Amino acid sequence: MLKRLEIKTSARNQLVDITSSVRSFLKSEDVSSGVLVVYVPHTTCGITINENADPAVKEDILSFLEKLVPVSGGYRHAEGNSDAHIKSSMIGSSVTVLVESGSLVLGTWQGVYLAEFDGPRKRSVLLKVVADQS
Amino acid sequence: MLKRLEIKTSARNQLVDITSSVRSFLKSEDVSSGVLVVYVPHTTCGITINENADPAVKEDILSFLEKLVPVSGGYRHAEGNSDAHIKSSMIGSSVTVLVESGSLVLGTWQGVYLAEFDGPRKRSVLLKVVADQS
Amino acid sequence: MLKRLEIKTSARNQLVDITSSVRSFLKSEDVSSGVLVVYVPHTTCGITINENADPAVKEDILSFLEKLVPVSGGYRHAEGNSDAHIKSSMIGSSVTVLVESGSLVLGTWQGVYLAEFDGPRKRSVLLKVVADQS
Repeated sequence: MLKRLEIKTSARNQLVDITSSVRSFLKSEDVSSGVLVVYVPHTTCGITINENADPAVKEDILSFLEKLVPVSGGYRHAEGNSDAHIKSSMIGSSVTVLVESGSLVLGTWQGVYLAEFDGPRKRSVLLKVVADQS
Repeated sequence: MLKRLEIKTSARNQLVDITSSVRSFLKSEDVSSGVLVVYVPHTTCGITINENADPAVKEDILSFLEKLVPVSGGYRHAEGNSDAHIKSSMIGSSVTVLVESGSLVLGTWQGVYLAEFDGPRKRSVLLKVVADQS
Repeated sequence: MLKRLEIKTSARNQLVDITSSVRSFLKSEDVSSGVLVVYVPHTTCGITINENADPAVKEDILSFLEKLVPVSGGYRHAEGNSDAHIKSSMIGSSVTVLVESGSLVLGTWQGVYLAEFDGPRKRSVLLKVVADQS
């Protein structure tokens, strides 16, 4: 099954923790072994895995990317969000997580984040499990 | 099945839209639900998903990366393409796309691109679907 | 099956070639067609694919990232490894490789690397194959 999460972001740049929604989805699927893909059907945000403990890590990642990819940089795309498109390709539009014994195999400090680069917006995040039956 | 696309790039840095080839491949496979992986077996190019409408977005992404990762930067690798190797690891060598009801689940503005960083060259892009049978 | 590799890194920044371990794991699994995911359950390292021939490429990638993401950069996270968290999200926490006829489909010059950004440390790398039975 394909699950669609609807997420409202609240800032231009934001990391939104979606780990618990991903875990809930996995519970609803009857899959003991496989992979779970978290995917955004957008081109100005991404999906990333990073620390779930100290919120300062999220701020450091976002601040670094804001300095690295300036909002105004002599871009040709006229919508004023070329920085968001660039960050989207740098971070990537999906992550793949392992599923074993019916559980998500995340490290202790890992959380799954929607990486908003052109908010505030309403975003979709798509979830799908592929079972391994080998 | 593994499908190999052969693509001739025409510039040192280029984003080549391969979305229609990916869709054609999926049609030829009889898979209703699963994931499709787009992979490059090269180390100086990558695969990325980004906007398929305004071509200026592609130019902005490529120009930004060219400024960020200079061609000559005091590198140790003697072949003169260290910038391309670096960009390859930043962008990544594959993307994973979802398949549902036999169709590629791409957002309205998403296209799949071969990201050439050391062209013009003849490149291979590998496509594979993994069906979910859970 | 889920395989866990235990890897001791020896420097703060290091690319450790794990290609032969990935191939050995695949041999032990009886899968002829599918995908293999290489995943790190950590937030200060990543997984990448790049050149396996000239070791200068690894040095160029690491040096570039060290210059791009400084160790001290006015970060808020107090553990002194914000640079490693940032690099982790830029490089990504997994790669997906294709499996065909029971073999890993890597390009001639491709190797799979654990990208350490906060070593020396003991790291785990998780490997899982998902078989395609379509």
